[in-house]
Amino acid sequence: MPSPEKVSVAVIGASGYTGVELARLLSIHPLARLVAVTSRQYAGQRMATVFPSLHDICDLSFEESDIASICGRAEIIFTAVPHKTAMLVASEILAAGRKLIDLSADFRLRDAAVYEQWYEPHSAAEYLTEAVYGLPELYREEIKKARLIANPGCYPTSIILGLAPLLRAGIIDATTIIADSKSGTSGAGRGAVISSLYCEVADGFRPYKVGGSHRHIPEIEQELGQLHGGAVTITFTPHLLPISRGILSTIYARLKKEVSAEQIAELYTAMYGEERFVRLLAPGTIPATQYVRGSNYCDIGFALDRHTGRIIVMTAIDNIVKGASGQAIQNMNLLCGFPEQTALTAPAFFP
Amino acid sequence: MPSPEKVSVAVIGASGYTGVELARLLSIHPLARLVAVTSRQYAGQRMATVFPSLHDICDLSFEESDIASICGRAEIIFTAVPHKTAMLVASEILAAGRKLIDLSADFRLRDAAVYEQWYEPHSAAEYLTEAVYGLPELYREEIKKARLIANPGCYPTSIILGLAPLLRAGIIDATTIIADSKSGTSGAGRGAVISSLYCEVADGFRPYKVGGSHRHIPEIEQELGQLHGGAVTITFTPHLLPISRGILSTIYARLKKEVSAEQIAELYTAMYGEERFVRLLAPGTIPATQYVRGSNYCDIGFALDRHTGRIIVMTAIDNIVKGASGQAIQNMNLLCGFPEQTALTAPAFFP
Amino acid sequence: MPSPEKVSVAVIGASGYTGVELARLLSIHPLARLVAVTSRQYAGQRMATVFPSLHDICDLSFEESDIASICGRAEIIFTAVPHKTAMLVASEILAAGRKLIDLSADFRLRDAAVYEQWYEPHSAAEYLTEAVYGLPELYREEIKKARLIANPGCYPTSIILGLAPLLRAGIIDATTIIADSKSGTSGAGRGAVISSLYCEVADGFRPYKVGGSHRHIPEIEQELGQLHGGAVTITFTPHLLPISRGILSTIYARLKKEVSAEQIAELYTAMYGEERFVRLLAPGTIPATQYVRGSNYCDIGFALDRHTGRIIVMTAIDNIVKGASGQAIQNMNLLCGFPEQTALTAPAFFP
Amino acid sequence: MPSPEKVSVAVIGASGYTGVELARLLSIHPLARLVAVTSRQYAGQRMATVFPSLHDICDLSFEESDIASICGRAEIIFTAVPHKTAMLVASEILAAGRKLIDLSADFRLRDAAVYEQWYEPHSAAEYLTEAVYGLPELYREEIKKARLIANPGCYPTSIILGLAPLLRAGIIDATTIIADSKSGTSGAGRGAVISSLYCEVADGFRPYKVGGSHRHIPEIEQELGQLHGGAVTITFTPHLLPISRGILSTIYARLKKEVSAEQIAELYTAMYGEERFVRLLAPGTIPATQYVRGSNYCDIGFALDRHTGRIIVMTAIDNIVKGASGQAIQNMNLLCGFPEQTALTAPAFFP
Repeated sequence: MPSPEKVSVAVIGASGYTGVELARLLSIHPLARLVAVTSRQYAGQRMATVFPSLHDICDLSFEESDIASICGRAEIIFTAVPHKTAMLVASEILAAGRKLIDLSADFRLRDAAVYEQWYEPHSAAEYLTEAVYGLPELYREEIKKARLIANPGCYPTSIILGLAPLLRAGIIDATTIIADSKSGTSGAGRGAVISSLYCEVADGFRPYKVGGSHRHIPEIEQELGQLHGGAVTITFTPHLLPISRGILSTIYARLKKEVSAEQIAELYTAMYGEERFVRLLAPGTIPATQYVRGSNYCDIGFALDRHTGRIIVMTAIDNIVKGASGQAIQNMNLLCGFPEQTALTAPAFFP
Repeated sequence: MPSPEKVSVAVIGASGYTGVELARLLSIHPLARLVAVTSRQYAGQRMATVFPSLHDICDLSFEESDIASICGRAEIIFTAVPHKTAMLVASEILAAGRKLIDLSADFRLRDAAVYEQWYEPHSAAEYLTEAVYGLPELYREEIKKARLIANPGCYPTSIILGLAPLLRAGIIDATTIIADSKSGTSGAGRGAVISSLYCEVADGFRPYKVGGSHRHIPEIEQELGQLHGGAVTITFTPHLLPISRGILSTIYARLKKEVSAEQIAELYTAMYGEERFVRLLAPGTIPATQYVRGSNYCDIGFALDRHTGRIIVMTAIDNIVKGASGQAIQNMNLLCGFPEQTALTAPAFFP
Repeated sequence: MPSPEKVSVAVIGASGYTGVELARLLSIHPLARLVAVTSRQYAGQRMATVFPSLHDICDLSFEESDIASICGRAEIIFTAVPHKTAMLVASEILAAGRKLIDLSADFRLRDAAVYEQWYEPHSAAEYLTEAVYGLPELYREEIKKARLIANPGCYPTSIILGLAPLLRAGIIDATTIIADSKSGTSGAGRGAVISSLYCEVADGFRPYKVGGSHRHIPEIEQELGQLHGGAVTITFTPHLLPISRGILSTIYARLKKEVSAEQIAELYTAMYGEERFVRLLAPGTIPATQYVRGSNYCDIGFALDRHTGRIIVMTAIDNIVKGASGQAIQNMNLLCGFPEQTALTAPAFFP
Repeated sequence: MPSPEKVSVAVIGASGYTGVELARLLSIHPLARLVAVTSRQYAGQRMATVFPSLHDICDLSFEESDIASICGRAEIIFTAVPHKTAMLVASEILAAGRKLIDLSADFRLRDAAVYEQWYEPHSAAEYLTEAVYGLPELYREEIKKARLIANPGCYPTSIILGLAPLLRAGIIDATTIIADSKSGTSGAGRGAVISSLYCEVADGFRPYKVGGSHRHIPEIEQELGQLHGGAVTITFTPHLLPISRGILSTIYARLKKEVSAEQIAELYTAMYGEERFVRLLAPGTIPATQYVRGSNYCDIGFALDRHTGRIIVMTAIDNIVKGASGQAIQNMNLLCGFPEQTALTAPAFFP
């Protein structure tokens, strides 16, 4: 039985990289207790056998995903599963009075038609308007009251946080946004596919899904449109980095008029000055993934290219912390009324 | 003494990564013989002691850079030195009737004022108009007749080759060009600096010289301007990749009008169809640095983003082969009347 | 002023990798406060500027190393400096009534003659007998009472912990010990030297100091001799791994007589069963550096080679946590009467 | 049709890393022509689509493995398939008068009983005595006359070449041999398995198959026994390195009596002085995988540990060149009467 003062949580689909990261973060959470982890592939095996990093830390065994059983034990349920899975279980979880934090894309898009255009038919579209987009820097108050949180995608987190102050202030031409993003390989998941093999990725670099085909585009455009107050279309190019953790987005836009670096800095400070997990770097300091590795920070820097009238915004996050599991814990903290930074204060490990 | 049928060559500044790569490529060149390598730092030591990869392959020892002595032994001289060094020796080398292939930036800019704006006073500006920009795909005939070849920069090679057919055809808006480039760490040279240490670079990724400050910009704009027939200004962001070799440039521009992928492909084929070292990838195939590693190829792919009216061009080269030493050998081959691909036909090594 | 209930600590030589790791761990330590960091190279600069991972986490600036001033502010002083430096300041620190945890080799060898044979003349030899070798699993009670703690070397930690139960039990032939150890590059420090450059280390692997020349040998032999109850000589070969963090030691010895895997497991359990930071892996599970990365664990596994009558012991640590800064904090906790695991409970980050 | 002066070759199982490496090396072989590549998985696809590094270099498409058809087109056939496959086709290939170079383990062990103890029942045991172990430095004359060559394993190549001069000279105690070997991940093949994923391997290091269980042990012991003139048993520990290419073996043995470094060097020179692909490093120089990367060299160094009476031999090879495909080409050259180094003279690429 969970101790009375701790919230009990379960992770459905805990054998991927976001699942093991949730277990890592929950193990140091003083106010939560992990009570169940599911995995079809490893059901019956101890989680610490599959992930020896959790030896002596997590003594749970993977179980099959029996929603009724899990709802009987856990108050908060994380779904860390491929898209289309969470929509099948959301109704039962919510009906049982449990709260759901979904790390997949199933509830991120408010418009079912958009979801169905990019993914496939949605079987729980009735929850799309209720679901809260779990980016605390934008939706903190809504998150606190939500039953169903759609945890943002990793690329969207890095791009939306980078552009929000500029779009709100209306100082960039929203038709000129280009996001050139680079992600570590953990973003490709733990599936056994040739394209994720060490020898295919190491000592190499490549773009993928170029030309407007990545499924994070509608999510990014939805949120940028909210900030802009009107439709936004962007060019987005993801790339695969030979690192395990980290996303760095280099984002370009044309300035509508000349502004000073100080004015830009003020916009960012106004929006993020009190944020615990957004760090505005000093002028001249440039974000790097190695400085956020393992932490829940989003580091932001920018430069003005006077020559061409553009601003270049750079953001760095750890894709499986702020880009996934850390942000999910941040959302859980808000949902439960815990201090927002609980279990998330560890600095990045460098080197 | 060199055998009569081989051209004798020397490398000034041979203890950097481009120097050892020149030695590697020259060792398999059937028509050239490396007769001297200089290095202030390692003078007196065998090159194969400093670079054990050359054990049994190169039996030269590093010597101090005595230009007169070197001109007495070598017909072709490569300078693989930091900028400002080649300009000090060019006059003596040319006066001795030797040919100079300079891998630094000293003779790449035709306009001394531009050089001096980005670098420092130029002490051999009288050679700037004579120097030929050593990009064979653009200046093959001039290279064959040159005395002084300015071997292109690594980033410029990747960007100019990617954009040339589009600019010549006039189908992109030249004010909208953004080049987001990522380079392996060998591009930072072999200097003992903290920022190039393994622990600072590995498992990380970062931009640098953001906002129009990288010295390759005037070189890129010079050549793009030539192709465009008018001034071009670009936004260029270099990034440091945790790989040893490779540059991948992701280049964005707005199309002036709607064109089909077939039409774009035809432009590239028309320009590069006969080129030995430019490979146009099949539609849907995306360049990756791991597929050009160790080779002299420039791989080019593109995608159309219908959504935003942009074209995204992607190019991949090995920064110390096609981006430096391989291209220098290609230039030497042209200069000497050798088959252009001599010593450069090895496929990339993958994995 | 430090809050009254926290111990104040200073790090002398805080701009290396062990220094920044001490700062990382101290930032999450609820019972300690970092009050001063010194660095000759960076004096006057903010630590978070040099190490952006500490942005918003550490607001100290590096200062010159003024021992009197530091002793006026800190109760516990860590020296994370090259050997020969700590011996110059130990006397002043101890005379001021402060406690010293030295991460260098200066106080690890009890016999000054041995030190001087492997290093150079020792200027504070009078402290050698007082200094406690800071391996808590062997010297916990002595550490609690010490003024001067010699924090163990990274390789010695991995080898001594691996062999201790076997030597104590007297079941291996002590003349047959071979330790083949592999270390991540952070072990080479943050010095700007060519041999530590990314391009020299990445995608490569090499032994170094082969044949009995590494300075950790006398330290290892001293402690193994203590455990064995008589002189022990070993063959030790260090290797450089293309990873940032981690040491894996593969240790070979001949068994004096046939023993079962169960008997061996019992020896390890008897010695380490209650240890918080030694994890005995299940039979068949093999240690790997990636499962201790960023944590203070030492993972131990073993295999019996029936074919040759040998036992193979494998240990994995993070060289800058359990191999340096984490162990130093563990020692500090013991010294201060804090729970031994304070600030050290974070699981390894995987991936 | 192959040109009359070139030998026609086929690769059965060409979609693994040794297959693509054979294609790379054959593409620069002036006396051989690759006429067929088979792959069940990719049948019908162009090899250059699967491996874009071969774009413009290899225009073959993968085909199903129809032995009769292949024997009709190729004079030399390489089998780069898992063990148990070559034994099924050997008879047909040899009966057709073709020569077979098998890169698997099927014909390496002369004793069928040993094979069956470590692998499974052998269906073509009648060829085991005829097959020649394809290590040219030991069996050059036999290779020239062979019909069936068993290309050595990667680990065995690195260990046998390292120990041969010492065993022949009888100066080491053959009961004390320990080989601690470390291999790049390409040695694990191109199978889509979780343990070979980038995130599982990168920034990590681990032993595997510890304690006498790796299937290369009988192959190593067979050849060491031949050299020793009597049975040899060894302890062998393989490890997985986070690099793509390379094996480094650190080999330990006790010297029977005191010998000088000069005497040892003489033994190596006597055996390998004329060998094109074995490089004896200068005293004090230590092998490293990065100096043989992409080349067919085996680099050898040694150190004497006076302290313990042991010799430590270190060897470095590229596991898919000298450890597999390069050695197979070397064998083909011998078989065909070509100069042994044909297509194999490229230096290692460093960095």
